[in-house]
Amino acid sequence: NTGEGESSYLLNSKFTNVTAIKSIPTLKRAIESLFKEESPPFEHLLNVADLGCASGSTSNTIMPTVVQTVVNKCRELNHKIPEFQFYLNDLPSNDFNTLFKGLNGFVGSGGEEFENTSCLVMGAPGSFHGRLFPLNTIHLVYSNYSVHWLSKVPDLRDEKGNPINKGTFYISKTSPSGVREAYLAQFQKDFTLFLKSRAEEMVSNGRVVLVLHGRLSQDFSCEKELQLPWLILSQAISRLVSKGLIDEEKLDSFEVPYYTPSVQEVKELVEGEGSYAVELMETFTIRIGARNEGIWSDARGFGNNLRSITETMISHHFGPQILDELYDEIQDLPLQDFATQCSFVVGLKRN
Amino acid sequence: NTGEGESSYLLNSKFTNVTAIKSIPTLKRAIESLFKEESPPFEHLLNVADLGCASGSTSNTIMPTVVQTVVNKCRELNHKIPEFQFYLNDLPSNDFNTLFKGLNGFVGSGGEEFENTSCLVMGAPGSFHGRLFPLNTIHLVYSNYSVHWLSKVPDLRDEKGNPINKGTFYISKTSPSGVREAYLAQFQKDFTLFLKSRAEEMVSNGRVVLVLHGRLSQDFSCEKELQLPWLILSQAISRLVSKGLIDEEKLDSFEVPYYTPSVQEVKELVEGEGSYAVELMETFTIRIGARNEGIWSDARGFGNNLRSITETMISHHFGPQILDELYDEIQDLPLQDFATQCSFVVGLKRN
Repeated sequence: NTGEGESSYLLNSKFTNVTAIKSIPTLKRAIESLFKEESPPFEHLLNVADLGCASGSTSNTIMPTVVQTVVNKCRELNHKIPEFQFYLNDLPSNDFNTLFKGLNGFVGSGGEEFENTSCLVMGAPGSFHGRLFPLNTIHLVYSNYSVHWLSKVPDLRDEKGNPINKGTFYISKTSPSGVREAYLAQFQKDFTLFLKSRAEEMVSNGRVVLVLHGRLSQDFSCEKELQLPWLILSQAISRLVSKGLIDEEKLDSFEVPYYTPSVQEVKELVEGEGSYAVELMETFTIRIGARNEGIWSDARGFGNNLRSITETMISHHFGPQILDELYDEIQDLPLQDFATQCSFVVGLKRN
Repeated sequence: NTGEGESSYLLNSKFTNVTAIKSIPTLKRAIESLFKEESPPFEHLLNVADLGCASGSTSNTIMPTVVQTVVNKCRELNHKIPEFQFYLNDLPSNDFNTLFKGLNGFVGSGGEEFENTSCLVMGAPGSFHGRLFPLNTIHLVYSNYSVHWLSKVPDLRDEKGNPINKGTFYISKTSPSGVREAYLAQFQKDFTLFLKSRAEEMVSNGRVVLVLHGRLSQDFSCEKELQLPWLILSQAISRLVSKGLIDEEKLDSFEVPYYTPSVQEVKELVEGEGSYAVELMETFTIRIGARNEGIWSDARGFGNNLRSITETMISHHFGPQILDELYDEIQDLPLQDFATQCSFVVGLKRN
């Protein structure tokens, strides 16, 4: 979602700000690990990629963290402070204009705090399910709440071409087992391509830190905990179907390109791809709803956040005319229904 | 000017497309020169910067030219084809969203023509009057019709703070000599910083190709030929002053951050900076007005082009309310008054 309006990603990215902050200790450890190698994999220049940066609210937390950690470590070890090249990546349809305008003060000097540091910031438009950067150049890869997005929705039709995931648009209790298998297969393909592309771009001993939406159980039975955003959106869409504002067939042909893997699935894919060692795998949960406790004080905040993430795809499939009514439904849902959401922080070392 | 409307830069960049095309032989020669060194200054990766790329209509001509020329030369010399990293630079206020959306098909594979070539495209937001890229990494710098823009307007007030360049906003026949001196001093400062910043970023034996608006004579006497866009804009503003739509004092405090150097001035600044050898210095003129002959078939095209380049600064100084009236005035001017415009192509070799 572009611009700086009320439903823009920029003003409603509290949740991903929280996950980014939760990942900072792991990011710092990954950076410090770079210095533990016999010879650090960088010398004059540290190339850092932030994948799926959106409007940059996370980048603006992550970039100073990287600079600060490297500068401290260089001072401690009497190592020359390198230049920093930050590649901020997202799809070409992302709002890079807002991203770039928000960088003021950091580009060049790294801001007042890091007066003598050279920080060069680039926008890297493209899909991370493929090559983005030159071979053998990237030292550190970071991605916050992006790699659970799939490159496309799996094909969920039977031999006759009829939808098999009726009445919903993600892996729900009512979905036949083929739905989950198809989603998993697409995630396996996409995440492997993600790892392979980064492996080509990274230097040996480079580090990866990924934060993603994951699930604690092997199956999808704790649906409410694991798939909360889709459950809420699903309830709202169902209400609009009942009101006759959304055609039932339209809902049947809608799927979200999103998969919430388990720790085991992520580990197996990393091992199967073969270019990395898993250095760290942490899980954490964030309360996103309980009154006065969660990260949103009301359903409005949650609704705006969900809107900023999903509006484009909802509008594309159902048409822009239903948007206001749909997200108003979400704001009417009782707050106590909101639960916690589980995330993973994954630390990888490029062999 | 952002977006894709009638007065957007994208749709009105015919003139800079022409100057870009005129520079292609020089660009090809500069690339071929890279291969003439004992050992070419690149191996696996060729880093190319396009400075002041705006919405990218020039980049979309230049990038395939670079790839084609390098691929041909590599095949001829049995040299491995490198990867290409194109850095597209402009100010952070530039419309990078439109730029990135226009790259479709080129990023990754370099488009159908260059099937097996890896082309990585980055946006580099920032001022080229300062550092943009990592030290010692850039092999080829290109800039089309940008380096005659100054980082700021010179201070054109006397000791009492009164404007010394009354009734106009550039170096005109009526300007006192101090105006030209102040503009030249600012250009000297800016162009030297431009050269110095690029010198730090470039590898030894890297090449620079600059296309810029220049003048053939040492003095500014052939005003009509040399300063055409400003002369036309000046006439239109004068008419609005007569009509009482623009305050005379408002005009007196307006200056454009633009300087049209002579060949001699450019050469002296390159030599004075000391990091480059001038390999080539060509001049060419483009007819921009003669009926049925120039690059615009009517004054409307010229007016739209001038509007796309100047609208933001005019609006900032005089207010948005005068824009339509002002550019309508330009479209009323007789076409036969439009003359030729002189440009330079400068080829430099980094020592």
